Amino acid sequence: MSRAEADIPAPDPALLEELVVANRILAQQQVVDAFGHISVRHPRDSGLYLMARHLAPGLVTAEDIVIFDLDSNPLRNLAPRYYSERYIHGEIYKLRPEVHSVVHCHARPLIPFGAAKGVQLQPIYHMSAFLGRGVPVFEIREAGGMTDMLVRTAELGRELGMTLGELPVVLMRGHGATMVGGSIKEAVYRAIYTAENAVLQMEAMRLGDVEFLAREEAELATAYMGTTFERAWAHWKRLAT
Amino acid sequence: MSRAEADIPAPDPALLEELVVANRILAQQQVVDAFGHISVRHPRDSGLYLMARHLAPGLVTAEDIVIFDLDSNPLRNLAPRYYSERYIHGEIYKLRPEVHSVVHCHARPLIPFGAAKGVQLQPIYHMSAFLGRGVPVFEIREAGGMTDMLVRTAELGRELGMTLGELPVVLMRGHGATMVGGSIKEAVYRAIYTAENAVLQMEAMRLGDVEFLAREEAELATAYMGTTFERAWAHWKRLAT
Amino acid sequence: MSRAEADIPAPDPALLEELVVANRILAQQQVVDAFGHISVRHPRDSGLYLMARHLAPGLVTAEDIVIFDLDSNPLRNLAPRYYSERYIHGEIYKLRPEVHSVVHCHARPLIPFGAAKGVQLQPIYHMSAFLGRGVPVFEIREAGGMTDMLVRTAELGRELGMTLGELPVVLMRGHGATMVGGSIKEAVYRAIYTAENAVLQMEAMRLGDVEFLAREEAELATAYMGTTFERAWAHWKRLAT
Amino acid sequence: MSRAEADIPAPDPALLEELVVANRILAQQQVVDAFGHISVRHPRDSGLYLMARHLAPGLVTAEDIVIFDLDSNPLRNLAPRYYSERYIHGEIYKLRPEVHSVVHCHARPLIPFGAAKGVQLQPIYHMSAFLGRGVPVFEIREAGGMTDMLVRTAELGRELGMTLGELPVVLMRGHGATMVGGSIKEAVYRAIYTAENAVLQMEAMRLGDVEFLAREEAELATAYMGTTFERAWAHWKRLAT
Repeated sequence: MSRAEADIPAPDPALLEELVVANRILAQQQVVDAFGHISVRHPRDSGLYLMARHLAPGLVTAEDIVIFDLDSNPLRNLAPRYYSERYIHGEIYKLRPEVHSVVHCHARPLIPFGAAKGVQLQPIYHMSAFLGRGVPVFEIREAGGMTDMLVRTAELGRELGMTLGELPVVLMRGHGATMVGGSIKEAVYRAIYTAENAVLQMEAMRLGDVEFLAREEAELATAYMGTTFERAWAHWKRLAT
Repeated sequence: MSRAEADIPAPDPALLEELVVANRILAQQQVVDAFGHISVRHPRDSGLYLMARHLAPGLVTAEDIVIFDLDSNPLRNLAPRYYSERYIHGEIYKLRPEVHSVVHCHARPLIPFGAAKGVQLQPIYHMSAFLGRGVPVFEIREAGGMTDMLVRTAELGRELGMTLGELPVVLMRGHGATMVGGSIKEAVYRAIYTAENAVLQMEAMRLGDVEFLAREEAELATAYMGTTFERAWAHWKRLAT
Repeated sequence: MSRAEADIPAPDPALLEELVVANRILAQQQVVDAFGHISVRHPRDSGLYLMARHLAPGLVTAEDIVIFDLDSNPLRNLAPRYYSERYIHGEIYKLRPEVHSVVHCHARPLIPFGAAKGVQLQPIYHMSAFLGRGVPVFEIREAGGMTDMLVRTAELGRELGMTLGELPVVLMRGHGATMVGGSIKEAVYRAIYTAENAVLQMEAMRLGDVEFLAREEAELATAYMGTTFERAWAHWKRLAT
Repeated sequence: MSRAEADIPAPDPALLEELVVANRILAQQQVVDAFGHISVRHPRDSGLYLMARHLAPGLVTAEDIVIFDLDSNPLRNLAPRYYSERYIHGEIYKLRPEVHSVVHCHARPLIPFGAAKGVQLQPIYHMSAFLGRGVPVFEIREAGGMTDMLVRTAELGRELGMTLGELPVVLMRGHGATMVGGSIKEAVYRAIYTAENAVLQMEAMRLGDVEFLAREEAELATAYMGTTFERAWAHWKRLAT
């Protein structure tokens, strides 16, 4: 399935820069530590995506960005090693044509919601209203039995994508979470506010019964917040670079 | 209702600078992130207020400050976009002549107190004694039914102001909080210590029954703490600038 | 009771510097914010003590250090305003001749232990073993009825000192805490690890019944840890200056 | 048992540098504060180990590294004072030939798990899968009766090593924890993710029953994560130096 390097359209420097900034933002905001990754679909070829080589997000530069096909074969700017879980990205891009960016992380506030039984992440305020249609939990045991917990094959990537369905966020039991968006900025926004919602929800649940956003409130707030990503991005970029 | 720009008294540079510092302090103290805002009433025309254009508080400079009338129409230093919730500020200035500064925020510790049922924010120590006359919660459903949670009209701003009443702080369910003061420094002080009180109260409630300040203690402490804003401001300013 | 300025022995520059560093350390370690203070008894006149003028600890320099008598009258390097609660320091120096430094603070982890009923701060590990003989709580209502919560008179200072007794730490309901030591370094050490113990104890109590240090373990550990203040001080000084 | 300094093979500068970086990483990641230490077995003489003199880890430089024999006698680059608990290191090196690095710390999230009864640290995600074979708690009272809590003798060091057994981590009631690894990077990785697991587990337990990694999942994940230490090290080193 892999193609000759000459066939691969060169990435736009502005996009490379945006992806590098996204890596730094996710690290500075503690969505990722040394682990986790973010990708973007190639704007000129929807069968390709861009993501860093095997490297901590906080250290990524434009020189570290590799181009992969949707089977997650590296095609351009080859490196000694790649993220073993790149199939998360490739398989979701296959299943979700409207998705243009994917974040995978082990953000601290999200692990408890993936591991504790009988609790559901729900939107507690307008900033995370995009959670309003539900947040599924991927149980890798159902897809692969006993594993090392990692999504290191196309098959597991596809199973994860099926659990995600048409939603923006999926939690992964004993592992982390994956978020998608129509752009890098949307995916980063969702990653940061999914984690923030988890912090807020944990605290609120200890105080008493929680009034979450109603389904209609969540839909309306999601629509409005979609106009504010640039404002948030400028803030996070200043902090991270 | 809007007036010609020539009629609008020019803002004092020192006031602009103070408002810029207030923005930076609120960001550094994590009362606001990319969202939230602070305004000040115009000292030479009580029918006007000053607030930044649509921009993260941590990035605000003097060039970004716009003058609005109390219907929240921008009059001077026009910009491509304004905070959609500026009606919070304008409507409160109409209802509360003695208020000279308003903060609106989504501070992390305050969201749980707005969302959990049956719990009330109360002053746990002298620093936040100004909470002693009660902290109401604004339920936007009662005012506007199903919304995007945002106070984006004069009507909703007025309803919020009515819930605030004569008090210094109002929580907003599924959204955040709004604080007022007789000066920028008082509003900033109240914003920071309202959030701090929430942190302390959550921890204390998990340890056992809490002895909050008595009403009389709260009144006496509020009066004394009113003499200390300069000391706190100098500290926060050093950290933020 | 106050004396002529000519009678007051000049402070040693090294001691002034150590007191300034202590202020910075307490701010950097978040034992104090804009409020709280640390004093040291005058090494050449046990009837005097040194403390900053009314100023946030993180901003204190050698020029800001005032000399007070034990009635808390300022005698040397007079300033426009002093900490209103300086009586905490003066009255404890009167009652405890072996005490050479006093810290007063509103450290975040200590407020819940002063406000929640039926819970006692106890040493959970060797670092805070000095808590082993008990941590009393000062209830200002018993001493002064309805107040602004502040220890702004010699009488309240003396009552606080009586509640402290022969111990190293006293919590203050609805207010904060006060720690003492035989030196600046011991008082700073105790302030930092009292707050740290509170964090640890809150978390441990949520996990199950806690095994605290036995009385004998606490005595033995206190004796040993007394040999390590220099090591801790060098670490905190590096972080704070 | 001590040997002449001339017999002691000089340490490799690269190893000294790695040990210095490890000290800085542990401090920056808040695994240690002014207290705690890390050692490495001498690569050219398995009967020796290297560790800093009595000094806060964040301040350690190559000049501060001392060589000890396994009875914890200092042999080369002698100093005025050594860590009183160096026996933790020497005795574990005697018992565990495959261990090449030891960390001892009082990391904040680990103290509650050592002090609360009836709770067990268990791996909540793949990053800390190495905890899957159990985490014992060392009760110094069983080994030494009433003590100052410190492992300041070879006998107590040996008892601690016996409780550790063949495992990677042992908690110490009322004190802290000790981790071991086949290399500095493995020991540092284990120290950081043991503390992280404790944070996550505390939060998850408050949400509901927790699904921990199954034994087989933990074994598989431990094997894979062993290939990723360099990636994590590069990230932590950037943050710490």
